[in-house]
Amino acid sequence: MQRRSEYRPRLVSYVLNNKKEGRISKEITAKIKQAAIDLNYQPNHIARSLQAQKTMTIGLIVADIANPFSSQIARIIEDEAQKAGYSVIFGSSDEKASKTEKLIKLFLNRQVDGFIIAFPENTQTQAQYLKQIGIPFVMIDRYFPEITSNCVSINNYSAAASAINHLLENGRRKIGIVTYATALHHLNERKRGAIDLLGDDAAVGEIRIDHVAEDVAEAIAGFLALPEPVDAVFFSTNLLTVAGLKYLNSLNVKVPDQVAVVGFDETDAFDLFYAPVSYVKQPMTDLGREAVNLLLETIDDSSLQKSVTLDTELVARQSSVLLR
Amino acid sequence: MQRRSEYRPRLVSYVLNNKKEGRISKEITAKIKQAAIDLNYQPNHIARSLQAQKTMTIGLIVADIANPFSSQIARIIEDEAQKAGYSVIFGSSDEKASKTEKLIKLFLNRQVDGFIIAFPENTQTQAQYLKQIGIPFVMIDRYFPEITSNCVSINNYSAAASAINHLLENGRRKIGIVTYATALHHLNERKRGAIDLLGDDAAVGEIRIDHVAEDVAEAIAGFLALPEPVDAVFFSTNLLTVAGLKYLNSLNVKVPDQVAVVGFDETDAFDLFYAPVSYVKQPMTDLGREAVNLLLETIDDSSLQKSVTLDTELVARQSSVLLR
Repeated sequence: MQRRSEYRPRLVSYVLNNKKEGRISKEITAKIKQAAIDLNYQPNHIARSLQAQKTMTIGLIVADIANPFSSQIARIIEDEAQKAGYSVIFGSSDEKASKTEKLIKLFLNRQVDGFIIAFPENTQTQAQYLKQIGIPFVMIDRYFPEITSNCVSINNYSAAASAINHLLENGRRKIGIVTYATALHHLNERKRGAIDLLGDDAAVGEIRIDHVAEDVAEAIAGFLALPEPVDAVFFSTNLLTVAGLKYLNSLNVKVPDQVAVVGFDETDAFDLFYAPVSYVKQPMTDLGREAVNLLLETIDDSSLQKSVTLDTELVARQSSVLLR
Repeated sequence: MQRRSEYRPRLVSYVLNNKKEGRISKEITAKIKQAAIDLNYQPNHIARSLQAQKTMTIGLIVADIANPFSSQIARIIEDEAQKAGYSVIFGSSDEKASKTEKLIKLFLNRQVDGFIIAFPENTQTQAQYLKQIGIPFVMIDRYFPEITSNCVSINNYSAAASAINHLLENGRRKIGIVTYATALHHLNERKRGAIDLLGDDAAVGEIRIDHVAEDVAEAIAGFLALPEPVDAVFFSTNLLTVAGLKYLNSLNVKVPDQVAVVGFDETDAFDLFYAPVSYVKQPMTDLGREAVNLLLETIDDSSLQKSVTLDTELVARQSSVLLR
């Protein structure tokens, strides 16, 4: 009860559902019941579930529903939740803190039992707020190292390191890294995992999230104009990879002959590229399943603090392996 | 009020917000107010918006959130709704009538002001139900010709016809059509638009929605084994197109030299295919904007019945145009 103090059932629900009558005088009880009959009052789903303290609904906030990672994980979370009898309502923060706050309020007012959230930048206070009010929630994909809370993510550092190691093992000598200029910890872990292996030799392009095509083009053009031009590029997200492949195509740069490519996440675009694209494969189904399971555990035991870290797989294909 | 008769505000909300006190005795009113103070009752967002008859929330039900069409349209609808001060909560029906019904109930219980829905097969009764209870809603993408209601869609018949005409104009003689075996009217209109131009000469593959890869492979293998093998294929959706391209790649069939391809909808995969894929381009932004606008009009005027049909564009690229 305590962690749900914001969700105080209303008097009329108390009365009509014959609970806690001791707290309300018999006279008021009788009169409310009569008034309810007069008004043809129908206790609705929310009133009933407030009694039961459960709406069997999960609020999911993804970072950008138009991003294949978000839409795939939404689909998986929905499937997993359904198996447990839960419905999912979702919203997309569009990577904006203000929108995340709005969606959290919206879903709180709609009495979700808990949240699964991919937090965008600068939303630490919102995560803290959810902790304070005691609503169960699980961070997915993104996490704040300074905030202890339930979290399901991949090992971003080693995921990136595995991509760089793969390129080095396949004879690449000068590797460019394309990542976002961001405060998002998981993406900076990917950058760190890549740079730690390369040291001063790494060429790094940091892309503004609202100027992807332009900045990716500039970064790659810069990589190719170096005294020792890059012979490989590692992209730390799927959208960066797609933007990079389009720009390499526009320059008529041959993959993997001139430049090897390793991307992140799966998309059909990687399969259909003339040199099928190597990528860091996230365990999408496990991510979604673990997030739902952890949330359900937290709903049952609000004291739980658990962090689940999953490993990735490097899928090596033609874009990074010289066939000749 | 009348069309929202299911959303009868509850007695306690009436009382605490000082509305319609005439319908409740002064004595009960005073006692409820005192009990509310005793219980530390906080009228919540839903109670308040029930008074105002608006929650400023739209319920969006897409067909499959993992499908790029769904996720892109969700993003656009959200952007457009936000401009009008509305939040969007969404769910994915996974093309299932049962899940659509569940989501409609879920959102009704959460007092959305209206719905935008891409109805899957066999959901006519659900559309009729929404009409009956008078909740504003707009069908998007899909529609039931037998049910008069607000609808925003493309001209599917002429969209498909434009694709076939383009292939004929580019010298293709034997055209295969890959579409779903479905009761969905909009997809059958695409099939009709293609077949009407080709008559008995059309080769048609009808794909089961839960066996896409397998059935697409079988259909294309069949097309290529005809006495006069196809020299072009028109795919009526994005997922069918991607599955078809993957199968053509696996056979090492060259596009457009051996087989020209026209797909439907945009995806990055079409851009990155070695022969950038021609496609029927839906006006996504206009679809989303019109759906939101029409819903808002309907919320203001429940008697409105308007059908908006938008035109598509045939984007001709290398996959269907012989360069030599």
